[in-house]
Order: sequence, then structure tokens, then C-alpha cells
Amino acid sequence: MAGAGHFGRGPAFHIPALAVIGVGLIGGSLALALKRRGRVGRVIGAGRSRASLEKALRLGAIDAIAAHPAEAAQAADLIFLSAPVGATAGLLEAIAPALDADKIATDAGSVKGGVCAAAQAVLGARAGRFVPGHPVAGKEHSGVGAASADLFQNHNAVITPLAHTDAGALETVRRMWRAVGARVITLPPELHDQVLALTSHLPHVLAYAMVDLFAASAAADAADRAAGPGLYGDMAAGGFYDFTRTASSDAEMWRDICLMNRAQILPHLAAFAGRLERLGQLIEQADGAALERLFAAARNTRTQVAERRPPAAPATST
Amino acid sequence: MAGAGHFGRGPAFHIPALAVIGVGLIGGSLALALKRRGRVGRVIGAGRSRASLEKALRLGAIDAIAAHPAEAAQAADLIFLSAPVGATAGLLEAIAPALDADKIATDAGSVKGGVCAAAQAVLGARAGRFVPGHPVAGKEHSGVGAASADLFQNHNAVITPLAHTDAGALETVRRMWRAVGARVITLPPELHDQVLALTSHLPHVLAYAMVDLFAASAAADAADRAAGPGLYGDMAAGGFYDFTRTASSDAEMWRDICLMNRAQILPHLAAFAGRLERLGQLIEQADGAALERLFAAARNTRTQVAERRPPAAPATST
Repeated sequence: MAGAGHFGRGPAFHIPALAVIGVGLIGGSLALALKRRGRVGRVIGAGRSRASLEKALRLGAIDAIAAHPAEAAQAADLIFLSAPVGATAGLLEAIAPALDADKIATDAGSVKGGVCAAAQAVLGARAGRFVPGHPVAGKEHSGVGAASADLFQNHNAVITPLAHTDAGALETVRRMWRAVGARVITLPPELHDQVLALTSHLPHVLAYAMVDLFAASAAADAADRAAGPGLYGDMAAGGFYDFTRTASSDAEMWRDICLMNRAQILPHLAAFAGRLERLGQLIEQADGAALERLFAAARNTRTQVAERRPPAAPATST
Repeated sequence: MAGAGHFGRGPAFHIPALAVIGVGLIGGSLALALKRRGRVGRVIGAGRSRASLEKALRLGAIDAIAAHPAEAAQAADLIFLSAPVGATAGLLEAIAPALDADKIATDAGSVKGGVCAAAQAVLGARAGRFVPGHPVAGKEHSGVGAASADLFQNHNAVITPLAHTDAGALETVRRMWRAVGARVITLPPELHDQVLALTSHLPHVLAYAMVDLFAASAAADAADRAAGPGLYGDMAAGGFYDFTRTASSDAEMWRDICLMNRAQILPHLAAFAGRLERLGQLIEQADGAALERLFAAARNTRTQVAERRPPAAPATST
């Protein structure tokens, strides 16, 4: 039962037993997506929260609860790590003994440099069985209760192979993502982290900072006017709501991303602060022509990005 | 035919002739909303772009095109100014001769302090017939082609009366907004501008700055790697897309808002820059506990704001 043979060939891709370590939005959605498409036999869940695992069981995302990650890994053909990315190194240690030549492991971490380094350090000769990945999909709500079989449809799944990643393992993980409707993109981990720091991590940080300021201003206003928190909340209409959608994401997940990808996030943050300062100067100098040029160019850029967006994607984040 | 008599009484609110000066998203939506509810007789449009006015005519938002704002005002009982807010003072001058005791004028400008000052300076004794207003609704797409009869449903319409605003005129404008499903909120203009600078104007400025940085980074990357602009665009998934939705708003409109409300926007911008710097320091210091606290608090705040959001609102911005 060596190589990728037991995952089927051609259109018959099938995972006999899948372990999902960390059954939240992403892990739950992958399990549901594979199940709905008949691409998985049995799903074994493991994770820190017994309540979440029981909920996943009730929702049909998983079929069994393992006592710990190693037990789930032992019982599975493919092991999917979908806990907050800071937990990945520890989970790789936990599953390492089970990761023989018959098994494949992959992950969903939003930072890939740290994950790749951890995999090489922790897994040693078994690192070839681990395929670092990142499905670029999400939602403002987290937890298995928000999981959906359509989450990855028309979204990108990035694969960042290690130097010695096994070709069969790589192909199996690619087929898994394609099976749930994703478009697979292969990137070096450093490039992934650099691009995602700008397109995903920075917007999240800005949204958190905006809500942080909003809360402080609303509280100060309520205290000043003894008026309750109502007015700022009432006025926080659509624009604010869309802008800060990402600030509803899971705090622990984003803590880990900020910590693990800080080398890439900090330069983008500094560049953003510089751009914002320049924009503030244009406003201060009442330079209407320059403001209009900047706004029109930004609108044009966003329209181009919107046109590249895959069709019929469900509401997303991350 | 003095006072608010010709707008009907009780549930029979009706505008015999409405002038819409600037028939874009907001003006077109008000016309369509009043028409669909049988609350308006005839709509006369005026504006800079003949093509837009002809489109508005084809779409049924307006029934006639006036040669200039004064002609539209002359023919109307209620005059609605919905051009970019920087044009308001000039338009008030243009309609002033027509603004007798039988007519009412109101506007949709996102900045109210400057509009109120202009109204008092330009209209003099007739300022009582002008009711400054701001329907807090919008969309990422602009122009009459994006107009919708549902745009104001369950949204706030802010009224910021002048010291001598006529009580009948005020009540008529309130009834107009209620007739199209909006919730009317009365605020002093300074407070409106202070709150909106935080909840709407700042997020727009941040979204523009984010897209500005994105475009520069994507261009630099494409030049570095001779790889075309693809990768950054491919990775600009849901989070980026939601976050920057407001950067698709009309450039001229937002130029005017930034210029007219800069006294309120600049302090919020400085406060934001301070919060962002602090967040950057937490990332730099790898202070996971503080990051998680900040993110969790922001998530909590946003959830509270989301709970206060009116039900069944269509996709919005502004």
C-alpha cells in the first residue's frame, strides 16, 4: 500500500480515512466538501475542544473523535492539520511517529515559511510525506458551525512544496483540493508569505485597528455625552461593516499569523503607514486634484482585481 | 399653496413634482423609490452629464430633463441635490431664485457642516426652506445604472436642521425619507461630521490607501519577476475584496468629502495611525497575549455593531 495508490487513480480519487486535526471552519469545510462529493470514507476528528468535536460529529463533518492527534493520525491515510498555525509544529511532533510511507500529511496554515521550517526540523526524513498548503478561503464566522461544503469552490489552494516533498504525496494533495473545487497554485513558501502579508494579513490588521479605534471613540463619545453607545453604532453603516468584516475573524488564528509572519507583515505595515501619511498630507493641503487622481487609480485597480475574481464564490474572508 | 399643504397629509404623502439635481446612484434611487411607492408625480432631472440624464430617462428614474438646475428647481415642489458635495454651494446659488415659500430643497451630501454654512451664506432669508440631509446608504457601484428603489430601506437618513429651518419643510423631508423606508435621525451638523468621519470617511480613506499600496506592490513584483500582475491579483481573495469595497466608490465624490470634512477626518486619521503604530509594535515585540486581547475585543465590538444593524439591508457602502 505504498505511494498514492490507495487514493485511487484518475477520476476515482478517494481518501479511505481522513484525520482532521482542529475541526473548525476550514477543517470542517474540507470534511463536508469531500463527503458531499463522495471522496472520503471515514473522517476522524481531533482537537482541543471536546465540545467542538461533538458539534462536528452532530453536524456530520466527522464520523469519530480521536482521543488525541496521534491516534487520529494512526487511523488515517491522509492527515489534515487545520488548527491555528502556531500549533502546527507541536502537531507535527505529535503525528510524526504515525507518518510512514503509506500516509500523507498536509496543512491549512496561512503562513508557510514557519510551517516548512518546522516540518523539516520536526519530521526529518519523513518531511517528504508532508505537503504544506493554504486554502485561501474563509468566512467572517469561525468554528465548525460555520463550515460549508462549498467553501473552497472556485478559490485558490496554494501548495508550497518542501525541497524533498514526495511527488506522489504532492499529487494526492493537489487532487484533494481540485476534488473540492479549488484551483491549485504552487508557490515557494517565501513568496506565499510575502504576497499574503499584503493581500490578507495587512487588511486584517487594518480592520482590527479600525475597530479598535471605533470602540475607543464610541466609548469616549458615550462618556462625554452620557448618551449610550448608540450613535456611532447607528452610523456604522455598510461601508464600515464591509471594511471591518475581517475583524470578526478568530483572534487566536490571527494572533498566530501575525507572530509567524511578522517579518513579512511589518514592512507592508510600514509601507502602508507611509502611504496613509501621504494621503493625509494631500487632505491637509486640500489637494483635490491629487486626491481625485489617487482615488480614481485605486478604483481602477480594484475593478481589475474584481474582474479577476473567480465566479460564483461564496462570501469569503482570510 | 403655502407650507407643506401640497405634499399631502397623513398617509397620503405625495410630491407633485420632484427635481433631482445630479441623477446618480443616490438621486436615481430616491426617484425610483418614490415612484415605486406612488409618492411622486413627475421627476425632473438636471446635471452635468447629458448621457447620464438620458440613461436616467431610459431607466424611468426621471420623466424629463431640464436644461439647467434652475429650470428643474422652477418646475418642482421639492428639490433634491445629489451631486458631489463640493458642488452644493454652487447649486444652492443656482436654485436660490426659485426657492420661494412654496418649495422645499434638501440634499444628500455626506458632509453637513460645510453644506449648512453654504446654505446660510447663499440662501439668506430663504435658508429656512432648505433641509440639510444625508441618507447613509450607498453601493460600491455609482451612477444611475446602479440605482435601486430599495437603496434606503432600513437605512438611516440623517437630517441636520439649520437654526431657522422651517418646521413644515423639515417635516416634509422627514416624511419623504420615511416613505422610502429609511429611519430618520436628527443630529447637529458638527456631530454628524465627527461621527461619519470615523464610521465612513476614515474607512474609505484606508481602503483607498490599501489599494494604492497593493497596486504599487503588485507592479513592483511584476517588474521584479517579469511575471505579469497575476499573483497579487490571484491572492487578493475575499478579505481584500471586502476590505477594499469602498475603494470602488466615486473618486470625485470622495475627493469632495475629504476636502469638506478634513477638519474632522484628519484627527481620526492621526488617531488611527497611532493605533496602527501600537499594533505594529505588538507584532514586532511578538506580544501574542496583547495581540489576542486586542483582536478578541475588536471581534466583540464588531459583533455588537453587527447586531445593531438593520435587518434585510441590501448591499451597501458610504
